Order: sequence, then C-alpha cells, then structure tokens
Amino acid sequence: MYEGAVQDLIDELGRLPGIGPKSAQRIAFHILDAEPEEVQKLATALVDAKSRVRFCEICGNVAQGVQCQICADPRRMDTVICVVEESKDVVAIERTREFRGKYHVLGGAIDPIGGIGPNNLRIRELLTRLQDDTVKEVILATDPNVEGEATATYIARLLSALPIRVTRLASGLPVGGDLEFADEVTLGRAFEGRTQVGV
Amino acid sequence: MYEGAVQDLIDELGRLPGIGPKSAQRIAFHILDAEPEEVQKLATALVDAKSRVRFCEICGNVAQGVQCQICADPRRMDTVICVVEESKDVVAIERTREFRGKYHVLGGAIDPIGGIGPNNLRIRELLTRLQDDTVKEVILATDPNVEGEATATYIARLLSALPIRVTRLASGLPVGGDLEFADEVTLGRAFEGRTQVGV
Repeated sequence: MYEGAVQDLIDELGRLPGIGPKSAQRIAFHILDAEPEEVQKLATALVDAKSRVRFCEICGNVAQGVQCQICADPRRMDTVICVVEESKDVVAIERTREFRGKYHVLGGAIDPIGGIGPNNLRIRELLTRLQDDTVKEVILATDPNVEGEATATYIARLLSALPIRVTRLASGLPVGGDLEFADEVTLGRAFEGRTQVGV
Repeated sequence: MYEGAVQDLIDELGRLPGIGPKSAQRIAFHILDAEPEEVQKLATALVDAKSRVRFCEICGNVAQGVQCQICADPRRMDTVICVVEESKDVVAIERTREFRGKYHVLGGAIDPIGGIGPNNLRIRELLTRLQDDTVKEVILATDPNVEGEATATYIARLLSALPIRVTRLASGLPVGGDLEFADEVTLGRAFEGRTQVGV
C-alpha cells in the first residue's frame, strides 16, 4: 500500500497484540510527525526492555536485577506466598494494597489445548520455596477461568500433603456490578460463597 | 508500577495514539516474550521510517525518494489532480481503483481553532502545479466535515479564475448503510444531490 519504510513500519506495528491495520497506520503516521528524539526513545525503550529485563530468580516476576523489588524487600512477609499466572497479576494485586506477603509467578496456566502442562510452569520452583517451614499459607490467585481453575486445583492437590494452609481468591459478584447482568456461573459462585451478615 | 525498563517501555508505548495503559502493558509483555530479532526489527522499522521517509516534492505524499510512486508513474494522467488532506486519503482512494490521475496532499485542512490557516497547507504548491495548462480538472477530496468543507470552498474560490474544472466528491448515503440511521445532514445532502434514474 505505502512505499518502503512506511509500509515496513505499519507491518511491524500490525504484529503487536491488539493493533489492527487502522491503528498501525495511525501510529505510523504519528511516528512520521514525531520528533526524531521521541522516536529514538521509543526504539531504545523497546530494545532495552528486551535486553535488560530479567525474571526474579526467586518468584519469576519481571525484575531489573537478579531479584525483583518485592522479593528483595525485607518488610514483606515470608510466611504467605500468593501464586499468580503472570507478572501483570502481581501489579494488579499490588494495586489493592491488601497483600503484604510475597509472590510466585507461574508463567501461565495449565492449558492442554495450548500445549502447556504443569512442567511448562514454575511449579517445581514453588515446591522448592516451600521446603523449609517458613511459608504458612499459599494463596492460589490464578485467573477464575477454566485454565486458572485447573492450575489451582492441580497445585492444591500437590500441596495437600504439606502442613500449609492453601486458599483460593473468592469468586462472586464484582463490586459496582449489576446482579441482573452477572453470568450464571458467577452468580452461582456468589451463592455458594455467601457469607453471614454480622450484627 | 513496574521496575525500570519495563515501566519505561510501557510509558513510551502509552504516548502513542490510541494506546491506553492496558494496551501499553499488554504490548510491553508481548515484547518481553518476543524473540530479540523481532524486537530489533520493530525498533529499526521505527527509526528507519522516521529517517528515510520523505515527502514527494511534487504532491507532498509520503515517498521513499524525491518523488512518490504515483508522481513518478508515467501511466498516471497528468490532466486531473485529486486534492486530499493526508497521505492516508491517497491510500484510501487508490484502494477504490477508480482514479487514474495524480494527487496533491495538503497536509491538513483549514482549522482556525487549531491554528491552521491556508498558509500552513500546501496550497501555494498546488497553484504552482496549475500554472501550465496541463491540468484540466481538480477534484477536491477533502474530508466531508467542517474543516474539509471550508478548505474545499477556499481552494474552489482560488481556482475559479483559472480555466479548470473544479469538482467535489459526492456527499450522500454510505453504500450498505441504513437510511433510518443516516444523520440529517447526510440525508439532506443525499436529497440535494439526488440523480435521475435512467431508463
């Protein structure tokens, strides 16, 4: 469609997730209009992120050094580990400011169709972290979908032999949501997990 | 939120048009998972597009060399010039395969609020192209909105002294659209521009 370098850029941008041909074109023209330094900054950020970012040797979270900031923080409790699928989930949970323990990032969820089994996830590393008796509770915070549930069930079974409390995040109605628009599975879970109203 | 390089990348991506914080995060993690060569290709495409792409010295369209492919193509008619706002519009019109003439890219539309007057557009360059008597028709294909209409009216007035046919793209109902959902201005234009049904 376009000549040489413009089309190359549109093609490369179109490979990114969530960027369709129209967005790619829009971004490409934004780049053509932008200051050269701005463009160079973006290009550098791309290459730097790829070359500098590592994964924490303890929890698997993205990290600048050998360990992530959370694992390196002595103020975080060592007695609770929250198991999540991705680094993004760590950020989402950190935003709640509810959790003061440490994390374990699995790097995905069990998905037989996608060819991801337990051995492709950082489950062995989790078991290693539980070998001394420091950890008292493991919170399974995988996604509330089929793959996430399967992963949680698999890990819960593995941990059942250990003297560790294993918990799962509550399922139920999203706060601020509308009961009538909740899907039946969510509503069913909300019934199952109903709590007594204290007086 | 994230550490160093990841957050830098998310911030840089978030500056692009149409990329919100969620998309920026999603793309950043895609980059972390991608092959280093893929990331390098994208970074190079960005810098190359910015440094290599020029604007055609004749029509103002994006070009790899001094002239764009269309201006350099001897099979395109020299007698008709289609005036558009942006290079994107050239691509949109080329897709119809209806037009075999040449283009003139203004680089925007008259927009007093945005501080864009006739002198900020490539209108003088258009007049220069019309000085010999080669061009017989100028098609004003600016956007059918306030700024585009104002620009078309302005140029039409400038060209009225010249022995050139000046035309404007038809306004009317979009093909495949629904009459009842057409806004009143479009429907009004469709009435004004109604054509006789031949038998």
